[in-house]
Amino acid sequence: MPEAQSPDSDITAAESATTVTPAIHPNLVREVADALEGGRPDAAAELVKPLHAADIADLIEALRPDDRSLLLDALGPALEPEALADLDEHVRDEVLEEIEPAEIASAAAELDTDDAAYLIEDLEAHERQAVLEAMPQAGRERLEAALAYPEDSAGRLMQRDYVAVPTFWTVGQVIDWLRDTDELPDEFYEIFVVDPRHRPIGTVPLYRAMRNKRPVSVNDIMDRAPRLIPVDMDQEEIAYHFDQYNLTSAAVVSTDGRLLGQITVDDVVDVIQEEVEEDIYRMGGVASEGDLYLPALATVQRRWAWLLVNLVTAVLASLTIAIFAETIDQLVALAILMPIVASMGGNAGTQTLTVAVRALATRELTAANAGRALWKECIVGGTNGIIFAAIMGLAASLYFDNTVLGTVIALAMIVNLWVAGIAGILIPLGLHRAGVDPALSAGIFLTTITDVVGFFAFLGLAKLILF
Amino acid sequence: MPEAQSPDSDITAAESATTVTPAIHPNLVREVADALEGGRPDAAAELVKPLHAADIADLIEALRPDDRSLLLDALGPALEPEALADLDEHVRDEVLEEIEPAEIASAAAELDTDDAAYLIEDLEAHERQAVLEAMPQAGRERLEAALAYPEDSAGRLMQRDYVAVPTFWTVGQVIDWLRDTDELPDEFYEIFVVDPRHRPIGTVPLYRAMRNKRPVSVNDIMDRAPRLIPVDMDQEEIAYHFDQYNLTSAAVVSTDGRLLGQITVDDVVDVIQEEVEEDIYRMGGVASEGDLYLPALATVQRRWAWLLVNLVTAVLASLTIAIFAETIDQLVALAILMPIVASMGGNAGTQTLTVAVRALATRELTAANAGRALWKECIVGGTNGIIFAAIMGLAASLYFDNTVLGTVIALAMIVNLWVAGIAGILIPLGLHRAGVDPALSAGIFLTTITDVVGFFAFLGLAKLILF
Repeated sequence: MPEAQSPDSDITAAESATTVTPAIHPNLVREVADALEGGRPDAAAELVKPLHAADIADLIEALRPDDRSLLLDALGPALEPEALADLDEHVRDEVLEEIEPAEIASAAAELDTDDAAYLIEDLEAHERQAVLEAMPQAGRERLEAALAYPEDSAGRLMQRDYVAVPTFWTVGQVIDWLRDTDELPDEFYEIFVVDPRHRPIGTVPLYRAMRNKRPVSVNDIMDRAPRLIPVDMDQEEIAYHFDQYNLTSAAVVSTDGRLLGQITVDDVVDVIQEEVEEDIYRMGGVASEGDLYLPALATVQRRWAWLLVNLVTAVLASLTIAIFAETIDQLVALAILMPIVASMGGNAGTQTLTVAVRALATRELTAANAGRALWKECIVGGTNGIIFAAIMGLAASLYFDNTVLGTVIALAMIVNLWVAGIAGILIPLGLHRAGVDPALSAGIFLTTITDVVGFFAFLGLAKLILF
Repeated sequence: MPEAQSPDSDITAAESATTVTPAIHPNLVREVADALEGGRPDAAAELVKPLHAADIADLIEALRPDDRSLLLDALGPALEPEALADLDEHVRDEVLEEIEPAEIASAAAELDTDDAAYLIEDLEAHERQAVLEAMPQAGRERLEAALAYPEDSAGRLMQRDYVAVPTFWTVGQVIDWLRDTDELPDEFYEIFVVDPRHRPIGTVPLYRAMRNKRPVSVNDIMDRAPRLIPVDMDQEEIAYHFDQYNLTSAAVVSTDGRLLGQITVDDVVDVIQEEVEEDIYRMGGVASEGDLYLPALATVQRRWAWLLVNLVTAVLASLTIAIFAETIDQLVALAILMPIVASMGGNAGTQTLTVAVRALATRELTAANAGRALWKECIVGGTNGIIFAAIMGLAASLYFDNTVLGTVIALAMIVNLWVAGIAGILIPLGLHRAGVDPALSAGIFLTTITDVVGFFAFLGLAKLILF
């Protein structure tokens, strides 16, 4: 049953934690694809039209590229502009190539400024110009103003429509004005109170405005000292403020404090997803988002550089083994046990690293508690080292019938897990202090260290003790 | 400069993307700690009082345990209940041990029901009972009702206060009622329109209610078929709905469709952070959140089980080497090159895995496009395999002056990177289908496969070709 076709489907879906129902059911994707490929574009359009714009975007992403064009033709002007603005970057650019500039312009004119900016921001200069020229003047000017701000800044994210009133107005005046004015944002959750120089000095949430009688002055019911977003603030910082202070919307101001626009929480939810996705991808050695929708060869291009770095560090680690070539030659058991020490160090270090990277992102790990965190990781690393030294030392002693060999791997295990804990916290802290995103490069530094220390400690101790 | 002391500090902070300013500056943490440890609790309290509750929570978390108790004593009843509800689970439990049940009860009575439930949910049964009994009756009944729902469900997350009106009311009646009623939620963004059986059949966003004249009927301006949240829905599913459909609030309904409460977006932002954090931690082999605040030995207890699994798989991988003991004995170069093949496979597979796990979480990878994604990973893995086979084959041929050895490592590299790509997508897909969270266990399966295939392909080919 295609879940998303009934707007009431939420209520019937009693789901468990692990089986989350996608809004776009695979069967629906297949039905649409079959209709498109079977020459029944109208049937496909009928299946798609009842969906929410966000679900239509997901459906377009799930189709193969050829079917995407067919669906766009089938829908024509019935395609909601919001669905285009909800597409992943790569799919968006592919889809825009199929649409005439005049049609893109009419979609952009219907969208909020921030969504319109997302829609056309990566078009080539001449195409972007063609779209802008085909737009009505008011919309074009707003869009050009938005595009003048850097990507990922408050200026790009904000809506230029907002509700602002002077301090001396009453609730009654605000209500009358809201009823009579056409030029209002589509959605708003608070009224900004501004001084004569148009600087926000307070806000009145709508629920409070509605609960007060007409003669009450906004000055008496406003929250003072509102949290303001400078227009050049980065979106990661904006997301932090919304999350930390439970904001629903916030005023965006120029460097001299004048009100320029507002950011609402629905845009910030998207930003949070985007920033966290970036962190996850970086820790996995993938350049950035959109990987799922890139063609295979473009994906190779984005991933191979990271693997090259890994190759260099893996070779460096192997050179550690080369130093002990003679030692290995004498005892093949060493070659068998060696990767175990390195692997354990890599995994223990990654545990510490994961916690540290995340705590740096949520600003829970700072200079104030870094020393304590380091001390703790020394204990954790050392203790786990002793646990696994006992397990592995015993196993190796019995399997190879060689207590000395067991002692060697036990000692190497302690050293490597202890170093892994220290490196797992010092590397992200150091990168963060140097202004480098630890999510991006900490992993490769860490595994290099745990490989080298693992091989060196194990083979070095072996040489010292065994021969 | 302690940023957070001035409520206007946002506006002065022109930050770049990489240097995000924490609301709680390390210097402030140090000043507070110095005041507490120097016997000047009043000075510490003065530093803390001007802060936002969320920042106070961060500050408490950043202090060492002893200083936390001192600060709680210094603040006394001046501590905002919201700060307690904002604490990390582990710190919350530690802090609650210092507070009398009567004081916890008065904090819980001031909080929204969902925050009060979070505050006391992990107290021991008799302590929880003592707190509940010390609460005013109305608050206690609501809190008991909330605690009766499972953790992480809509019932636990929802607020029991909401605004609901019948279809035949006018905007004027709604406004008059809002002005005269005391029993309203602290914050609300929409008015639910209910049928005679108290089932929500529409919603009127506040901004729309404010923009319409008094005689207009809510029936004429409401959004029909609202997105409803069943009371047993899991919070991960709720977060998906808010994100996908840009919701600001949503009605929570019983199994027979009656309105029970509402969930607002600020709570959902916390859920999104929590769920994503869980994914990141799981991929890093850390059991769950709060790791940063656990004492070292409790951390060992939580991390060592994962390392044990890794030990078993690392040993299994090493047994692959043991099969070829004779081969290694003959050529020490093999022992040197062997970890490179395994390491490259592990990293390439992790790239694929990262994308797949994230795409499963955002529901962008489904049965509809799984086949295409697999095919793509075959191409990506094979292509990267050929690239690195060329690099490493050449390097090994030259370094060891042995073309056959270069050929062996080149072939092994192609096989392992190809298998890594396939495993990187099939493992998370298989786990997801089996109802297991792929973020949790996919990594360990993957590296086991890439280690075994890496060792086996390299040593097996060596045995075949070299000897």
